[in-house]
This record gives sequence, C-alpha cells and structure tokens, in this order.
Amino acid sequence: MKTPFHRRRRAVVSLLRETKASCLLITNPANWYYLTGFTGESGALLVSQKGTGLVTDGRFMVQAHEEATGIRVRQQKGSLFESVGQYVKDSHFSQVGFDPSQLTVSQLQSVRGATGGRSQWLPVPGMVETLRMRKDAAEIAQMRKAAILAGEVMQRGIRFLKPGIRELDAAAEIEYQMRKLGASGPAFETIVAFGERAALPHARPTSKRLRKNELVVLDLGVILGHYCSDITRTAFVGRATRRIRTWYQAVLEAQTAAIAAAKNGASCGDVDAAARQVLKGYRLGHLFVHSTGHGLGLEVHEDPKLARGQKRHLEPGNVITIEPGVYEEGIGGIRIEDDVVVHADRTEVLTRAPRDLIEI
Amino acid sequence: MKTPFHRRRRAVVSLLRETKASCLLITNPANWYYLTGFTGESGALLVSQKGTGLVTDGRFMVQAHEEATGIRVRQQKGSLFESVGQYVKDSHFSQVGFDPSQLTVSQLQSVRGATGGRSQWLPVPGMVETLRMRKDAAEIAQMRKAAILAGEVMQRGIRFLKPGIRELDAAAEIEYQMRKLGASGPAFETIVAFGERAALPHARPTSKRLRKNELVVLDLGVILGHYCSDITRTAFVGRATRRIRTWYQAVLEAQTAAIAAAKNGASCGDVDAAARQVLKGYRLGHLFVHSTGHGLGLEVHEDPKLARGQKRHLEPGNVITIEPGVYEEGIGGIRIEDDVVVHADRTEVLTRAPRDLIEI
Repeated sequence: MKTPFHRRRRAVVSLLRETKASCLLITNPANWYYLTGFTGESGALLVSQKGTGLVTDGRFMVQAHEEATGIRVRQQKGSLFESVGQYVKDSHFSQVGFDPSQLTVSQLQSVRGATGGRSQWLPVPGMVETLRMRKDAAEIAQMRKAAILAGEVMQRGIRFLKPGIRELDAAAEIEYQMRKLGASGPAFETIVAFGERAALPHARPTSKRLRKNELVVLDLGVILGHYCSDITRTAFVGRATRRIRTWYQAVLEAQTAAIAAAKNGASCGDVDAAARQVLKGYRLGHLFVHSTGHGLGLEVHEDPKLARGQKRHLEPGNVITIEPGVYEEGIGGIRIEDDVVVHADRTEVLTRAPRDLIEI
Repeated sequence: MKTPFHRRRRAVVSLLRETKASCLLITNPANWYYLTGFTGESGALLVSQKGTGLVTDGRFMVQAHEEATGIRVRQQKGSLFESVGQYVKDSHFSQVGFDPSQLTVSQLQSVRGATGGRSQWLPVPGMVETLRMRKDAAEIAQMRKAAILAGEVMQRGIRFLKPGIRELDAAAEIEYQMRKLGASGPAFETIVAFGERAALPHARPTSKRLRKNELVVLDLGVILGHYCSDITRTAFVGRATRRIRTWYQAVLEAQTAAIAAAKNGASCGDVDAAARQVLKGYRLGHLFVHSTGHGLGLEVHEDPKLARGQKRHLEPGNVITIEPGVYEEGIGGIRIEDDVVVHADRTEVLTRAPRDLIEI
C-alpha cells in the first residue's frame, strides 16, 4: 500500500528530473513531515531517485523508525550538516539541490566542506512548497476540521470576554479551549488586543484589562492533525460608535469582495486589490497596513501570498486566509479573517463563525 | 537615563572595533529584543557607531516606535532584505558584518544585490549570542522568577496526573496553569510522555491515556518577562519496580554530579562527562542518547552547549540546564532537569521542585 508520503516523494523525484540536481536536501520540518511523516524537531532529508534518507540525532531515532517508513534513517555523528555531507559522499550524489531560502550561509558551508568539494550544490527554491500549495482531498478534509474547530474556539473566546479580564487571561482561556476540543495546540501565539492595543496587527497579549467602549481583536488558530487554521474576529464592549460601525462595515465588505475574487485562475494580486479597492472607497486605504492574506497548511504562513502585485494564479487545492483590516493609533483596529479553499468551480469558506460586529 | 538596551548596543559597537565590519546586521528576534526591546516578529537591525536602525513592516511600526527608543525606525518597502540593502546604501556602510548561521543563502544574495555590490559582507558569527551568555543581575533575577514559576507549574502538573487522562489533557492543563500563574506562555511545546512513549526524549503529546505501572515524563518551561525556564520531572504510576528505582537513582546521581561540576571555570565538556561517567558506572551510558544540557535565556536553546568535547569554559552569569536521562524502547524513559546559574564563587539551582522519584 502506498502512503501519501510515498506518492509525494515520487512527485519530488519527478520534478527533480527537470533540474540538474540528482537529489534534493530538505531541512524544513514541515517539508520532511509532508514527505515522510517524521515529526522530529531536528534532521535533514535527502530525496533522490535512488531512495530517501533521513539524518537525525539520538533523540529522534525511535520516532524516525516508527513514523517514517520506506526510507533509510541514519543517526548523525558530529554536527547535523557534517553528517549530511557524509551521507551525500557515501551515496555518491554529485549534484545536490538545496533551497537557498531555507539553508543558512554556514549550513551550506558546513555541508559543502563535509563533501570535500566533490559535490555541486545547486539552488532549487520552493520545490516542496509548490507541491504543498495544492492540497489533496484528505488534506482539505483535515483543514476543514481545523477551521471548524478554530471557529468553535473563537465563539468560546468571545463568550469569555467581559470588562476587567486581562488580555493574558483571554489568551490562556482560548488556548485551553483549543486543547479541550482536541487540537494539538495553537498554530501561532494567540493575539488578544484590547482598546488602543488593537492598533497593533500582531499584538502580544499583555496584562492590560478590558474596559467598556473598547475594541477587541481576537486572532487565533489551531493545529489539528498537523494542519493549521487561522481566524480573526473583532468585538466592541458596549454600543459601537458610528465611526466604528462604518469601519467595521468597510472591512467586512472588503473581505467579502476579496473572497468573491479568490476564484480558481484569479491572480493573487487581484484578490488583494479587491479588498484594497473597497477600503479605498471608504477612504480607509491608508489604514490597511498589511497584505490581504496568505497560504495555510502544515505551516501557518505558506505560499501563495495575497499581496500587492503578486502574479501567481490561484489553483484548485489552494487554501488561503482572507484578512483585511484597518488600524489607527490611539483608537484601535478592526480585522476579519477567514480561511477559504479554492476548488475548480467554486470557493469554499472553511471557517464557520458569525461575521457581524459583536457587541458585548 | 541609559537603558540596558543602550548599554548592550554600546557593547556591540565596541566588539565591532575588533572586526573589519563597520556595522552589524541582526536578524534574530531574540537578538534584536536584547539590543532594543523591540518585540515585533519581522525586521532587521543594523548596529553601528553611527547609531542603530531598525527596518520593519507596516504591521510592527507602532510597536517599534513604542518599544525601541533611541534608534531610527524605517518602514520596509518591497522585501525586507531589499529595504535593508537600501538602508545600508543610504548609510554608506561599506563593510557589513552578518551572522552566517542566521542569514539564509537567499537573504544574503538579496541584501547583497540591493546594495549593488558596493558593500562588503563579512561573516561575524555569534557576537550578540556571546554577550547574551553572560546574564546581568536583572536578567538572573528575571530567570529566577521564570524558573520558580516553572517549578510551581510542574507541581500542579504532577497533581493533575491520574490513570485515564490523555497526554494532551495534561499538556493543556500545564499550559493553562502557566498562564494563570502569570507566564506569557510556554517556552516550548510541553512534553508529556506516558509509558513506552517516554522513550522518546522529545515526544509530542498524543491522545494516549495514562495507565497503571507506567512512567510519566513531564518537560515544561515558561516565558516570563521574555526569559525562559525549562524543567523535567519523571513520575511512576504505582509502585516502581526495582529496575525503575535503580535507573532513577542513576539519573539523579548523574544530575547531581553534573550540577556539582558546573562551576565557574569548568569546561562544558567536563560537565557533560560528569553526568556520563555516573551513568556508565551503572552500565546505562548507552541509554543516555543526548547531551547534558544547554544555555537558557531569551531563547530556550542558547550557548553554551553542555555536550561531549565542548571546550568552552563556564563563566559567571551563564544560565544552563542540567538534564541527563536514560531511554529504552519498549520500557520508557527517565529524565531529571533543572536550571542553574553559574556565579563567581558558587552555582545556584534556579528551579525548585522535589527531585525524588514521584509515585502516584
């Protein structure tokens, strides 16, 4: 029986034929999980037509043998990259592909040194990431579960909000609920921002307490069965002012427009522009200080990027966030974020939680 | 009034004089926090005699202005490393130091390209890490609090253990207690390993349930005021067998010996050897599959490394973990870990929790 891991390794081998490399060095944990199922925290993978080898240290040997079937596992001696070099030498690989955005200058130097200059090192950027962008049916089913779970956690988080609690309390409660509902953990540090702190798109929870007439931004995601979700909702404690209502309406319309634009074949830059256009119409374009969204999967930030001028076209199986927002110092911020999957003929919103302005 | 950040930047400038570089590029978040107080998640810092500049994106501009005083903040245009290159060009830096273990091959290429070949790029490894190894009194005071908090969480975690709970439940409870006690979060993914899974030194919590006559390894740490702690305890559900008792005694003696060896001036390799020697005496040396410990601070793994053959000598202000263990497939594992700080004339154990075998 062939596992998805086996099939994916075959896809790498087939892509390698289009390059000059005879094997590919993989150092990103999400990539080696994608290709082998190995969940250890340190190691390096070498995929070639002759088979796949994993080098890891003593802490992860048992795990490697249990999780990664159909590949060779070798325990590192000395530093990881010296051992990888030795493996390359022993396997007589003369052309090794590596991802220049994932190997540090000193790792490349060390692995090069260990092969004694007998191998050529070729930049092969983003090969596994390209495969990972197109999720298969099983991955989408898993991400749907992760997204639904995030929506449920969001609703519990919102119910927990009341004047007097600290941002840290809300973050603790939210991450506790994630685990209670079965997540293996948060996909990223949960963002809880009250009042003026909501003007920081990536605020870290502090001991600030929630007061009346403040905005609340909750941005959270879970990892479930290795896959991430990511959702944001904005609430107001009390009755929102007219300005807050207008801003909220603008962000919601921007998000709706971007979701509608996120179709199979659309360019990523056009999806970003759809959100930006709406906010410009409200004269709020200058308050939208980040991009519209990002790919989501084994990592919480993956390709494709939904940002200004991105020319890549959406394809079936792409899972992305759509998360426009507006931010003003001294006032706060509003962001609404959902996860969507692009199908051949439609776009499905994976996260399920009401999107109207929440007044507490 | 000069902040510690200011003093540390001056130390970097003074170390730079011993190199050919006129400025240092810093891309590791822990390093830029150490030098400026900036807690954003994306950016790059350039420290030179002419002052310090931070390049970051729109999401972190407000935060940068609030947190990082006495430095220039510039918003990135295009990619981060293009903007850094532009900054280097505008500042007429001709020799830029960078850490080859922290810059990827493509980041170096991108920043080099953006300066149009007018700057020389010099590898300057580990300069800020070297400063960070010697914690000052305020840092040690903060780490003492983080260590005590971890000990308290450990004791709550142990009280939570009972047959039938899942590893994931214990991890959720532990991380919830961290936050309740004031931590900003876990320093790393909490390790909860029951029974045979305790043979994996870095097991991730699963839905496995705790049964009678099983070992339990809990390895946890908190972040408090930006600094990390790290503690491990091993428990047994029921009355431990003679073998488990002997193994536990061996690990405890190994840890005690390593703590005694961890004195100002001792070599890191000798501390590792002290633990290894004891386990060898028990004929358990082959089951100790990792190194004895690691530095701890703003990051959970820092220099110095306490591993075989490490020649670096311990100095006052070094904070390290001491964590020998034994692991056997099919049986489980035992690990005991505490954090210690090296003073000029003594070594202080920061973590406070009983170290005897816990029987539940």
